[in-house]
Amino acid sequence: MTTVTNRPTTPPLSTQLVYRFGDGSAEGDGSMRDLLGGKGAGLAEMSGLGVPVPPGFTITTEVCNAFYALGRRYPGGLEEQVRRGIAHVEKSVGARFGDPDNPLLVSVRSGARVSMPGMMDTILNLGLNEEAAEGLARRSGRPRFAYDSYRRFIQMYGDVVLGVRKASDEDPDPFEALLARKREAAGVKEDMQLDAEALRALVQDYKALVREHTGAEFPSDPWQQLWGAIAAVLRSWESARAVVYRNMYGYPADWGTAVTVQAMVFGNLGDDCATGVVFTRNPSTGAHHRFGEFLVNAQGEDVVAGTRTPQPFLESARLPESPASLETSMPGPFAEIERACERLEQHFADMQDIEFTIQEGKLWILQTRSGKRTGQAMVKIAVDMVDEGLIDEDEAVRRIDAEQLNELLHPVFAANAKREVVAKGLAAAPGAAVGRVVFTPADAVDSAMRGEQVILVREETSPEDIEGMKEARAFLTARGGTSSHAAVVARGMGKCCVTGCSALRIDYARRHFTVESKSHGLVVVNEGDVISLDGSSGEVMLGALPLAEPVLPAEYERLMVWVDERRHLRVRANADTPQDAERARGFGAEGIGLCRTEHMFFGPDRILAVRQMILSQSEAERREALAKILPMQREDFIGILRAMAGYPVTIRLLDPPLHEFLPQTVDDIADLSRALGMRIDEVKRRVDALHEFNPMLGHRGVRLAITFPEIYEVQVRAVIEAACELRAEQLQVAPEIMIPLVGLERELERLRELVLRVAEEVLDERGIRIEYAVGTMIELPRACIVADRIAEHADFFSFGTNDLTQTTFGLSRDDAARFLPVYMTQHVIERDPFVELDRDGVGALVRIGIERGRSTKPGLKVGICGEHGGNPASVVFCHEQAFDYVSCSPYRVPIARVAAAQAALAG
Amino acid sequence: MTTVTNRPTTPPLSTQLVYRFGDGSAEGDGSMRDLLGGKGAGLAEMSGLGVPVPPGFTITTEVCNAFYALGRRYPGGLEEQVRRGIAHVEKSVGARFGDPDNPLLVSVRSGARVSMPGMMDTILNLGLNEEAAEGLARRSGRPRFAYDSYRRFIQMYGDVVLGVRKASDEDPDPFEALLARKREAAGVKEDMQLDAEALRALVQDYKALVREHTGAEFPSDPWQQLWGAIAAVLRSWESARAVVYRNMYGYPADWGTAVTVQAMVFGNLGDDCATGVVFTRNPSTGAHHRFGEFLVNAQGEDVVAGTRTPQPFLESARLPESPASLETSMPGPFAEIERACERLEQHFADMQDIEFTIQEGKLWILQTRSGKRTGQAMVKIAVDMVDEGLIDEDEAVRRIDAEQLNELLHPVFAANAKREVVAKGLAAAPGAAVGRVVFTPADAVDSAMRGEQVILVREETSPEDIEGMKEARAFLTARGGTSSHAAVVARGMGKCCVTGCSALRIDYARRHFTVESKSHGLVVVNEGDVISLDGSSGEVMLGALPLAEPVLPAEYERLMVWVDERRHLRVRANADTPQDAERARGFGAEGIGLCRTEHMFFGPDRILAVRQMILSQSEAERREALAKILPMQREDFIGILRAMAGYPVTIRLLDPPLHEFLPQTVDDIADLSRALGMRIDEVKRRVDALHEFNPMLGHRGVRLAITFPEIYEVQVRAVIEAACELRAEQLQVAPEIMIPLVGLERELERLRELVLRVAEEVLDERGIRIEYAVGTMIELPRACIVADRIAEHADFFSFGTNDLTQTTFGLSRDDAARFLPVYMTQHVIERDPFVELDRDGVGALVRIGIERGRSTKPGLKVGICGEHGGNPASVVFCHEQAFDYVSCSPYRVPIARVAAAQAALAG
Repeated sequence: MTTVTNRPTTPPLSTQLVYRFGDGSAEGDGSMRDLLGGKGAGLAEMSGLGVPVPPGFTITTEVCNAFYALGRRYPGGLEEQVRRGIAHVEKSVGARFGDPDNPLLVSVRSGARVSMPGMMDTILNLGLNEEAAEGLARRSGRPRFAYDSYRRFIQMYGDVVLGVRKASDEDPDPFEALLARKREAAGVKEDMQLDAEALRALVQDYKALVREHTGAEFPSDPWQQLWGAIAAVLRSWESARAVVYRNMYGYPADWGTAVTVQAMVFGNLGDDCATGVVFTRNPSTGAHHRFGEFLVNAQGEDVVAGTRTPQPFLESARLPESPASLETSMPGPFAEIERACERLEQHFADMQDIEFTIQEGKLWILQTRSGKRTGQAMVKIAVDMVDEGLIDEDEAVRRIDAEQLNELLHPVFAANAKREVVAKGLAAAPGAAVGRVVFTPADAVDSAMRGEQVILVREETSPEDIEGMKEARAFLTARGGTSSHAAVVARGMGKCCVTGCSALRIDYARRHFTVESKSHGLVVVNEGDVISLDGSSGEVMLGALPLAEPVLPAEYERLMVWVDERRHLRVRANADTPQDAERARGFGAEGIGLCRTEHMFFGPDRILAVRQMILSQSEAERREALAKILPMQREDFIGILRAMAGYPVTIRLLDPPLHEFLPQTVDDIADLSRALGMRIDEVKRRVDALHEFNPMLGHRGVRLAITFPEIYEVQVRAVIEAACELRAEQLQVAPEIMIPLVGLERELERLRELVLRVAEEVLDERGIRIEYAVGTMIELPRACIVADRIAEHADFFSFGTNDLTQTTFGLSRDDAARFLPVYMTQHVIERDPFVELDRDGVGALVRIGIERGRSTKPGLKVGICGEHGGNPASVVFCHEQAFDYVSCSPYRVPIARVAAAQAALAG
Repeated sequence: MTTVTNRPTTPPLSTQLVYRFGDGSAEGDGSMRDLLGGKGAGLAEMSGLGVPVPPGFTITTEVCNAFYALGRRYPGGLEEQVRRGIAHVEKSVGARFGDPDNPLLVSVRSGARVSMPGMMDTILNLGLNEEAAEGLARRSGRPRFAYDSYRRFIQMYGDVVLGVRKASDEDPDPFEALLARKREAAGVKEDMQLDAEALRALVQDYKALVREHTGAEFPSDPWQQLWGAIAAVLRSWESARAVVYRNMYGYPADWGTAVTVQAMVFGNLGDDCATGVVFTRNPSTGAHHRFGEFLVNAQGEDVVAGTRTPQPFLESARLPESPASLETSMPGPFAEIERACERLEQHFADMQDIEFTIQEGKLWILQTRSGKRTGQAMVKIAVDMVDEGLIDEDEAVRRIDAEQLNELLHPVFAANAKREVVAKGLAAAPGAAVGRVVFTPADAVDSAMRGEQVILVREETSPEDIEGMKEARAFLTARGGTSSHAAVVARGMGKCCVTGCSALRIDYARRHFTVESKSHGLVVVNEGDVISLDGSSGEVMLGALPLAEPVLPAEYERLMVWVDERRHLRVRANADTPQDAERARGFGAEGIGLCRTEHMFFGPDRILAVRQMILSQSEAERREALAKILPMQREDFIGILRAMAGYPVTIRLLDPPLHEFLPQTVDDIADLSRALGMRIDEVKRRVDALHEFNPMLGHRGVRLAITFPEIYEVQVRAVIEAACELRAEQLQVAPEIMIPLVGLERELERLRELVLRVAEEVLDERGIRIEYAVGTMIELPRACIVADRIAEHADFFSFGTNDLTQTTFGLSRDDAARFLPVYMTQHVIERDPFVELDRDGVGALVRIGIERGRSTKPGLKVGICGEHGGNPASVVFCHEQAFDYVSCSPYRVPIARVAAAQAALAG
């Protein structure tokens, strides 16, 4: 006995087992997905609207349950209802099952209430046999089409229903093997080149193959074909693949599958036939006019194949040399399509993407769905539909795919550009860039000074590359994932970035990289060569592709007003420079949630002092070096606080391990030894002594301040002095000083004391009072667990979910690229946890952290400043957990605003 | 007004404010610590037992509270009671306060209910003034002693009571400055060399200093001196240091401090005087005889100073040439001491360490406390006392300091050995070792083959050093903490280890290390030089110190029977080889809780195949290399399972990142390229490509198995084949296969499927059934959080608290040495979380993991296999959390057994 998964007792069977549709009416409707499956319900809905869909009927999911309850037998009454269903279809299209002159052909499809891989594929052209094929050839005048349809039907039915398939993974598909032999015999390379005779002979070979495998003739009786297909659909519900899939998503076995049987229609039976696609609005621009194309005497696949040039749908869209539009060449069906478009768009209140076929002058609508659109069209359509009264403002906000707003915010390649893709990496930061290749940050700076646009190509980047990264247009790295240093910096700066492009072999010494590509063989790209990078697809291309500037449609501003009216979460930006801060304000940021002070340490005017500070052997030496850094840090903070005047600015004190600031190469170490007047071997020894095995878990964050408190003292002084200067200019400033990597209550207790002591000292010196806050990153599991105690010393919590994800999973984001893709392909994990916050693990710790933190301080301000702050699903989580704000890179601020509004609307 | 910490309303004051003791009776007793402080209660207890303690009295802690409640004034009635107290003392010792001929001198001490740094030090010799000093000189015939006592009294009182002290940290102490000037004037180097006249003059200088600082004469009236000292003790309760300390430990302000005033007695007033120390039993061996020494006509500090050779307490302990014993020279006081010893040991039911003074033939007992003892004595005394009916078996088990059992289990240096300490590192693994210095694992192997004992000295060790580490007697590293690789391996192997010895400058090229030591200047230690290493103290010594072999006393076995009868937790060992497994059995291990398979991969006969496997580019290549490893792994498992027949053995599949197995130096890479017939640059490229930024969070554990399932397949096959072979010999085997680093439910689901598939395949081939289990390490915060889901696929959980501590704290144990010592010194954290499980953070996650795991599977077997499994405090935690077992290094198995029994007794 085959194993059947446990199922509850089946409820008593309804008397109606089959629901018919077509002829402008239907027995079911779109609300009946549970009973009719997604497809069946959709077809019923369209038909009920009076849209001309090819007639058919759906066998309910209850039948599926009954089928298993009865030991894989059909319930009584089904046969009769199916018979009536076929009669309805025959009547509607004027053809008959098995009629050699005008055979009715049908498709049979499975359909659960949700789309589910692992179940049966569609069977097309059911009803064909020798006579019917002959009849179809005669009627269409295209025998090749008739026999190709027939051989495809046998192949599909033979595989899915009769189980004629390869014995093991190593074997070839038996039908494909016969097809290949035919091609060889005919001396052709493509199936398309086989003529009607060859296909007719192939049909005989196929039938012999079926006979050999099953010991029986391929069924020629359409009824026998139909019942075989229905049984195959029902059996597929308990196939191994479907069961695995159901278990993975927790779908119960008693949902069952429906079976939809529908008349086939053909757009290729003559010149009064056509097939095409129409959008109810322009999916590129969102403009309110139809947008579509069609081919006379063709099947749907001809439109896709691109061998013939499609004709425009509207006359107004016709170019001077193009063939006639549907509007002028088939005005009757055109008018009918117009009506269907209007009805469907009104009904679904969204722009529709509609497939249609015209058979012998009669229009059939095959499918309608919400149309895919560009970000620009998405915004325009949503706003237009509010103006048209189709949807309200809430719905317009809900309609926005927040992630897709990216398209509006970054430059893109022109859609029609020819792409010579030589390698593909991870799409780490969206946008498009064209530039000359450079291999070192110093070269990036030099080239930028010469006014050149460059793309920085590295094995990976590190914080000391930051100056060069500022100057480059984009980054391409051979290693690292979508959360690697390059990726994070790129998204922060709004630059395009491709990471983990493992095909790259970079030779720094020869200043080139090579890549072995299938299409181009071995390609050598030298320093100075121009490449194009698509950060949204991960593609690397040779030469300069044309760029298209993003246009923020007028509707965008209107939409964002509705968005901001609805959201509760505040949205801040992560920004380290006055330029970033200004950009963030432009995108609507309401403050800075994360200002990383270490990026400032890499400036060419200060890195030497920073290195001197790090290599100091005593507190006195260290203070001397820090004294040089203080005025520069103060200027940094003045710039940022000024750009964000009136808004809160959270400044994180120094976080990375000190060795990140030190040179690593022999030459750089020699330079440093000269600059500091220190012996080379002594510099080298000190640099080596700072090496760490796991820098992520090393001497960084608050740990630096416990061992070298003078570093944070100087930073706090710089912040408060900056605030005082701006306050003297009557500007509103609200610095929030944030201590990173706290895991122990006493760490924050000590540092809070330090901050207060230094701040009060400065304020006393200046005789000024300003408001400032002291808080902490919550980015370690331990911090979440003891958040109640940490909260005693914190004015705010900012969840650093990048590091919290790393520690909760024990997963280095710099190293994850080696296995995370395999995890995702194999569904060990569904989503990259560095992109979308892992609710079950990291999220649970965040919840604990908030609960405990607010148990100590009910009004504790809570934010998030990891990359997740700009990920829509994660923003929803933050809303649910009553965060006060999210903070993300400036370019993602609009995305976070939309996601926050949607979360608020969702409840 | 001085800030006073908040205190609740003081309860009404008792009428008795002063409790007297002495003359064989006392008004209080040992139970009154809250009222009399620890010291006062102890003295009352002794006095109440009839032991002759110098008489005195204690002012209660209630007085302290009243003092603050009254705005720093004494409560009514105190003066009168203190007067009566002094009268009691005068009467008891026959001397009088301020009597020039026979002055009563007293000590004044603070005493809270717990010992508390930050409060006032003792003031001695209170009551001295010009006349009394003169009288003391006459009476003792030792004017130098009299004036030295007087000048010390002024110095102490001047500082503590009158506040005469240096103005800033940079200044010298003003009293010490005067003393130094006197030494200069006299042309001597030591205070001891100043004669009576010089000291008498110094007293005048001291008085002038006090006059200058305070504007008043140094008080000569003993009563004025006494009230000044009492007030100083009471004020010290609210000193800044005491308040900080109280807040740190959460001690309430209203505990208050008591003040104890006690007569001074002198052992140096003539030849009928003496001072000494006696233990009621031998603290080295535990033998039941007194053990002590004394000096005639001496003070306590003379015994300590070692300028005179002390005389033995017992005649039987006298060596032929030594001076007379107390037993023969002062039979009267000796008999009195004997009675006191008997009474105190019976009373406290523990071996006592007693200080005594004989003044003019009269015995005074100054102090008694439980005596420190060796591990051996600890065990013998506990068992003997059960036999003597002093304590019961439960109490004997409670008495054991589990950690101290270490002394019994490792070799130690002879107690009398002269130590030339040149450097000190962290005491990473206990024991003592002597050996020649080598700097490379290869040299360790070579030397061992020549039969030499060597100590491996490295910057730090790594897994590829394992073969050399096996051959070395001990390890000394310049970097790394007490949980570094070297430390963990050492404890596992029962070897001695000192880590983080940062004074070492290792020069591999010149094959020496240098160390700059205060005592020895610059010391160069060359390869081949002999050093001695004390892993219990962290000391590094030149030359060969004599070693003492540990002796397991007969009482040990009896004790451990009581221990095992009481504990609920099972104790297993972490063991990777048959030798380790046998040793573990010898120490009483009830199975293996962690068998690390990677250590087997480093064997010289297999590392090549392992490297070939790692550098494979395809599954086929990898399988080919694995096929070579399979039979070797099978033999490993046969050995271990055989040694543990009848007990469970948990085998952890491959855990470390693969690059740990690869060579890193140019030479080793060249060797490998020859061995594998691969180009050097290709080997180098592949080695580089496997580099990770944070290997701890990288491609390791179950992640290896998700990407390369064939590795675990081969390991599972080796385990099950080994089990089958032993089963064929009728041996009981119970392998438990453990998957490391699981953080996602599906990881374990997949791997459980893999293990079951391979295991059943092998069992089918062999036609044998054996029991085996599949479980997982819980070592990531996420695993704790989703333990309910992970438990669905696990037969057992083993908490890997090493890694769980690393991830919960975000703290690399290899890098923590850089700041953790500062954290501990500054009390940011109290205990090294890699030594003692952090209850608040890591412990909370463990609790969540167990709760959720057992919510899915109530009977889920739960163990721990981190280093904490051998730490007594952590074992108590495991007992409380209802673990089934703990697992630790073989040498710590007895410790864990004792800790488990103590935990069971405690609750």
